[in-house]
Amino acid sequence: MRELGIVTDGAVLCREGRVAWVGKTGEFTGPLPDDMTVLDGTGMVVLPGFVDSHTHAMFAGSREREFALRSEGATYQDIAGQGGGILSTVSQVRKASKRELKHSTSRYLTEMLRHGTTTAEIKSGYGLAMETEVTMLEALRELRDEELSGVVPTFLGAHALPPEFAGNLPGYVALLVERLLPYIARKNLAVFCDVFCEQGYFGLEEAETILSAAKVLGLKLKVHADELTSMGGAELAARLGAVSADHLEKISGRGVEALAEAGVVAGLLPGVSFSLNHGYAPARRLIDAGVPVAIASDFNPGSCMSFSMPLMMTIACTQMRMTPEEALTAATINGAAALGLSATHGSIEPGKQADMILASVPDYRFLAYHFGVNHVRSVIKNGTLLEL
Amino acid sequence: MRELGIVTDGAVLCREGRVAWVGKTGEFTGPLPDDMTVLDGTGMVVLPGFVDSHTHAMFAGSREREFALRSEGATYQDIAGQGGGILSTVSQVRKASKRELKHSTSRYLTEMLRHGTTTAEIKSGYGLAMETEVTMLEALRELRDEELSGVVPTFLGAHALPPEFAGNLPGYVALLVERLLPYIARKNLAVFCDVFCEQGYFGLEEAETILSAAKVLGLKLKVHADELTSMGGAELAARLGAVSADHLEKISGRGVEALAEAGVVAGLLPGVSFSLNHGYAPARRLIDAGVPVAIASDFNPGSCMSFSMPLMMTIACTQMRMTPEEALTAATINGAAALGLSATHGSIEPGKQADMILASVPDYRFLAYHFGVNHVRSVIKNGTLLEL
Repeated sequence: MRELGIVTDGAVLCREGRVAWVGKTGEFTGPLPDDMTVLDGTGMVVLPGFVDSHTHAMFAGSREREFALRSEGATYQDIAGQGGGILSTVSQVRKASKRELKHSTSRYLTEMLRHGTTTAEIKSGYGLAMETEVTMLEALRELRDEELSGVVPTFLGAHALPPEFAGNLPGYVALLVERLLPYIARKNLAVFCDVFCEQGYFGLEEAETILSAAKVLGLKLKVHADELTSMGGAELAARLGAVSADHLEKISGRGVEALAEAGVVAGLLPGVSFSLNHGYAPARRLIDAGVPVAIASDFNPGSCMSFSMPLMMTIACTQMRMTPEEALTAATINGAAALGLSATHGSIEPGKQADMILASVPDYRFLAYHFGVNHVRSVIKNGTLLEL
Repeated sequence: MRELGIVTDGAVLCREGRVAWVGKTGEFTGPLPDDMTVLDGTGMVVLPGFVDSHTHAMFAGSREREFALRSEGATYQDIAGQGGGILSTVSQVRKASKRELKHSTSRYLTEMLRHGTTTAEIKSGYGLAMETEVTMLEALRELRDEELSGVVPTFLGAHALPPEFAGNLPGYVALLVERLLPYIARKNLAVFCDVFCEQGYFGLEEAETILSAAKVLGLKLKVHADELTSMGGAELAARLGAVSADHLEKISGRGVEALAEAGVVAGLLPGVSFSLNHGYAPARRLIDAGVPVAIASDFNPGSCMSFSMPLMMTIACTQMRMTPEEALTAATINGAAALGLSATHGSIEPGKQADMILASVPDYRFLAYHFGVNHVRSVIKNGTLLEL
């Protein structure tokens, strides 16, 4: 994670949306197309676009009131008890139309592109019922086709227990397994299935039931694991062959070993620990154990109202002891790995999708070091310079 | 600090650079000038421009290497021992011309304006010799006259002991008191005198000598107090009648009482604790004791490479238990108070300088809540809409 393969005085040739050549400017010897567009990056750093591998960027309403309550000492659990938390966003999303959801997420995707994020995973999970979960996933599929950003849809029906099923967790799990998952798989509405595996949400047993059903149906797996309690979510992710286990603030030593052995990506979310003023995931221990670590924004209206990947890098460096090199790897190629896309995304290599940003900084370290300001000046997606 | 005086559906009339009227749009009854420029703020929040009361925004070089070293566990003191820290910036500033210093700071001031900071205090203190300290202050005076931003210059000759005086602290204090301060006062080059009162820098006795001399010469006082060690810097600030005591990460209970009794503003710097991963100043205790609390960026290349006042508000709310209302007060009117400018700056009131920002947020709380993105859409300085 510390090897960036920096090319000084470099050049990149893109062709048909892909990287055709990368190296020192002076070393290019092949023929150049006549109608080539040249973008001058003098004095700038060219980087792969950020791959934000964990977001909830489709939502309605906002939760600034909860932010204020937390500043006065209320905990995440207190707020959920007062009718806040995930379910307050669920009630807003259920009232929103597909068009409204698309419009709001489309605006966020554009802002995210302006801040360098060229690919974003987005989860459902604010519907928690057949109709609204499907609406969210259909909206995400349409955005994937219509927007400039890369969008990877994840089904997170198991985000919280909806009020209709209060006291009936088995009934909701049955709905997910028997009705939603088969429909979503048949309609090809999601690449991943994710479960919030946590006390008071979905236990290990329920998570395993849901994820196993998803796996049989051909979905890839993610797990919200060991966020508030060390309950073995990471071990479950490893056992089921999940692509990533995310959060991990409370991961155990055995969880770290399990991820390392199974090659599961650890998806760390620095902005959540920062926003909630909780402890951070043990990034150092994970990296030192050989676990591939990604960082993502977890952009959502409750626990992290930010999509800034550079700021996530700053938090990772200052609070989690990740080096600037590790943070950059975690925000690009390892983010791609957390989405099963490392063969095509996350680095500037011949044959890969040409998703790149030009940052007005003298050195890649400035992205994390000089924080709270957007250094991105140009964004290239599929080889095309975007007008943002 | 929690009373914001919010006007919904409000309007502000500016005339000759000042606020002439403020209230509900429908309640304005007076005559309007024919040649009035109208700025539509529908759907936005109008706020006083941020007053950043503690910055080191004039510097040369950068210290991203130290940022990387800290991510690997090096402390601030380790880095100073390896030739990093303040003195590494001093060696860069001594090599820079006045024109270079002005150019770099001018660019930062423009970026700060774009992020809503309409007034910034800027300290010298990277010269640490007669000629370079005077060069910095002259450069700041010229910027104050030339730039759109408000600039308040502070003399911080006592920032660190320059290499020429190694082992001779009394000699350097004598230089400051006998030569620099009288010259700076006579030429009117600074509004404030500040001292880094800290073990290994300037002790209580030296700080008192320097600040007392400055006071006699008519300068107002600031103190870098109780940052790394609880040594009574706050009490000294109170005893000398300083306008503000800044940092205060390690302030004692007696220090808090002293500031409250003397009415000294506590200038807290959330970005430094965040960047260095140190403890935070006890904002809650200070506010509850009746101390007026300001927050500032401390923008500098070593311990906080950020000038984003909204991000400082976010850090204050999430890490220091300040409410969004307190954070906004601290970043505006209390920032003005920390510069002795609360009669003319820091709020939108008739007769005050018309320094305002329009933020594209539905509610003032979004400035802190929705972090890592610049919400400022328009900046008005002295009643004029700026083209940034």
